[in-house]
Amino acid sequence: MENFRFNAYTEMLFGKGQIEKLPEVLKRYGKNILLAYGGGSIKKNGLYDTIQKLLKDFNIVELSGIEPNPRIETVRRGVELCRKNKVDVILAVGGGSTIDCSKVIGAGYYYAGDAWDLVKNPAKIGEVLPIVTVLTMAATGSEMNRNAVISKMDTNEKLGTGSPKMIPQTSILDPEYLYTLPAIQTAAGCADIMSHIFEQYFNKTTDAFVQDKFAEGLLQTCIKYCPVALKEPKNYEARANIMWASSMALNGLLGSGKAGAWTCHPIEHELSAFYDITHGVGLAILTPSWMRYILSDVTVDKFVNVWHLEQKEDKFALANEAIDATEKFFKACGIPMTLTELGIDKANFEKMAKAAVEHGALEYAYVSLNAEDVYKILEMSL
Amino acid sequence: MENFRFNAYTEMLFGKGQIEKLPEVLKRYGKNILLAYGGGSIKKNGLYDTIQKLLKDFNIVELSGIEPNPRIETVRRGVELCRKNKVDVILAVGGGSTIDCSKVIGAGYYYAGDAWDLVKNPAKIGEVLPIVTVLTMAATGSEMNRNAVISKMDTNEKLGTGSPKMIPQTSILDPEYLYTLPAIQTAAGCADIMSHIFEQYFNKTTDAFVQDKFAEGLLQTCIKYCPVALKEPKNYEARANIMWASSMALNGLLGSGKAGAWTCHPIEHELSAFYDITHGVGLAILTPSWMRYILSDVTVDKFVNVWHLEQKEDKFALANEAIDATEKFFKACGIPMTLTELGIDKANFEKMAKAAVEHGALEYAYVSLNAEDVYKILEMSL
Repeated sequence: MENFRFNAYTEMLFGKGQIEKLPEVLKRYGKNILLAYGGGSIKKNGLYDTIQKLLKDFNIVELSGIEPNPRIETVRRGVELCRKNKVDVILAVGGGSTIDCSKVIGAGYYYAGDAWDLVKNPAKIGEVLPIVTVLTMAATGSEMNRNAVISKMDTNEKLGTGSPKMIPQTSILDPEYLYTLPAIQTAAGCADIMSHIFEQYFNKTTDAFVQDKFAEGLLQTCIKYCPVALKEPKNYEARANIMWASSMALNGLLGSGKAGAWTCHPIEHELSAFYDITHGVGLAILTPSWMRYILSDVTVDKFVNVWHLEQKEDKFALANEAIDATEKFFKACGIPMTLTELGIDKANFEKMAKAAVEHGALEYAYVSLNAEDVYKILEMSL
Repeated sequence: MENFRFNAYTEMLFGKGQIEKLPEVLKRYGKNILLAYGGGSIKKNGLYDTIQKLLKDFNIVELSGIEPNPRIETVRRGVELCRKNKVDVILAVGGGSTIDCSKVIGAGYYYAGDAWDLVKNPAKIGEVLPIVTVLTMAATGSEMNRNAVISKMDTNEKLGTGSPKMIPQTSILDPEYLYTLPAIQTAAGCADIMSHIFEQYFNKTTDAFVQDKFAEGLLQTCIKYCPVALKEPKNYEARANIMWASSMALNGLLGSGKAGAWTCHPIEHELSAFYDITHGVGLAILTPSWMRYILSDVTVDKFVNVWHLEQKEDKFALANEAIDATEKFFKACGIPMTLTELGIDKANFEKMAKAAVEHGALEYAYVSLNAEDVYKILEMSL
């Protein structure tokens, strides 16, 4: 096991009605709130009104319209709002995009230069405004971690950044907020969670047994409950387990003690940077292709512990069955499973492959990949 | 899943040589340190000297001789030392006993009355001095949680207390510190970890799937690595996984979202309060008896997921195999598996059974138990 520092300090308030604690949580920081949210689904499902009522004694400034792949322009707008209104704390209500955007706004508030510097170079992140989140989508784990991904579409850049200071102070997770999610978002969210797990599970470090068992348990959670949530959107047990899995999958538990870089996420970030697609969908498409591409004597043993397949002599046949099961699972969840279905062709593959290797340090991944490898994986995903 | 608040905020510094970060960690709080430790094993293995060298710029007051079942008298002594020397932070170097003792000292420092009040009534715990730990034994999970257990031998009381403010700020976990542990302590430590997992795994809440999968993974960790550590005390992989499992087993991950009281721990506390035995040994002895006693139509399904036994029609036969496997495992680890071997007879069973039910709220356990039930479990453990 590699040496590590683990510090997932977010206060997680989980369950029905936890939103009632919001005033008590926010008043720890002050009266001036930036309320950040996305496209307005929280106005449809009543959450916006609930929050307004609960926070009647606070001064609220709103930043709405945060994009599914949040843009640096929106971050800049948020920083200005925070400065102008002397904001004490950012309340992010939404999924990973809203939370990621809020984190970089919180860092940008204390940074004299342009916020894009903080995305390009996390070392420039200093102080960060306190972040409180109300989660309305289970996917990125941003509610309990240091990461943020921001896009700059004019240069086709979608980059991850992060700092321990960007970890949310408190996150409110009420599984009932997932009841009204469109099916594709439930499915894409689970694909994102599963991809986070795969990225950390498939790793050169072989002796982090605790972390691997946690990973398998979380994969089994998604496999068990995603179909239930799709069939019965108001199944509390399914929503609760998926929601908790999303936080556990990327709060450091699975990756601590392991070394090396991720694979599918950097490649997907290029897809999103060029075509603005749904992150989880891109990941679901890439994952089986990547798995097939890297299957070898060295990696084969890692593929068999998740799907509880009947053991057989030929371990490559078993691994292929597991990969097929992964692809079938995503398909059954209603995710379009080819780039062609998303209208993406080879036109930018070369540029994307080069950028993925560069941004993602893919030579340090579970199986080292160069631009040619990534090109082939993209081709297999057509 | 029940509503819950999860906040395991301890900064965990895990791995070889992490002790080097100690000065940097401690200086966050001040110059005056209470160095708390147990019977002196840290003087034999060199850790004491390392710490003295690292902390040459700090003012150190020592509290040594903390007992395996730490006494309230020692807590009181620690409180006095802290007050007299204006201590800023407590550095607990040891296992659960030293850390537990330090937690209550930290709380006692701010409490005007006698520290035993804080054990009898956790609601009286207010502020707590910051606690930093260096772990030298993998067992209680105290390095990452709010709990403390303190004994008062003149009244045969061993009671648990706790407060979110007693969670250590930073814990240093270097698996190499476990290399010199006596075999029985390695085994008893694993039994304690496994008991923590069982206490939370066997629970009336049936839909906390994530938590159950984590529990199964941690049990498998102990089952896999305890025998390795016993055979090869300097096996880093084994020590690292056991050490990390100890923190994960009782930091809130497994119990969040579940309701109800524990069973074997309250019963064991009575054994320790009357006979001052090793906590993990008492737990190992009680566990199979308790399992056999509560096996029923309602509980049978929960027994089969840990030991990877061959499936069979008769699920009671399978459950009994699993219980037998648990007992055999502890025995193979070298733990004396009867109370008789510890020199304990029925003399105090009635008193202990009554006290366990009262202190442990056993009517709210996985299977409700009254004093008569506890008596029978003790009898089965002779």
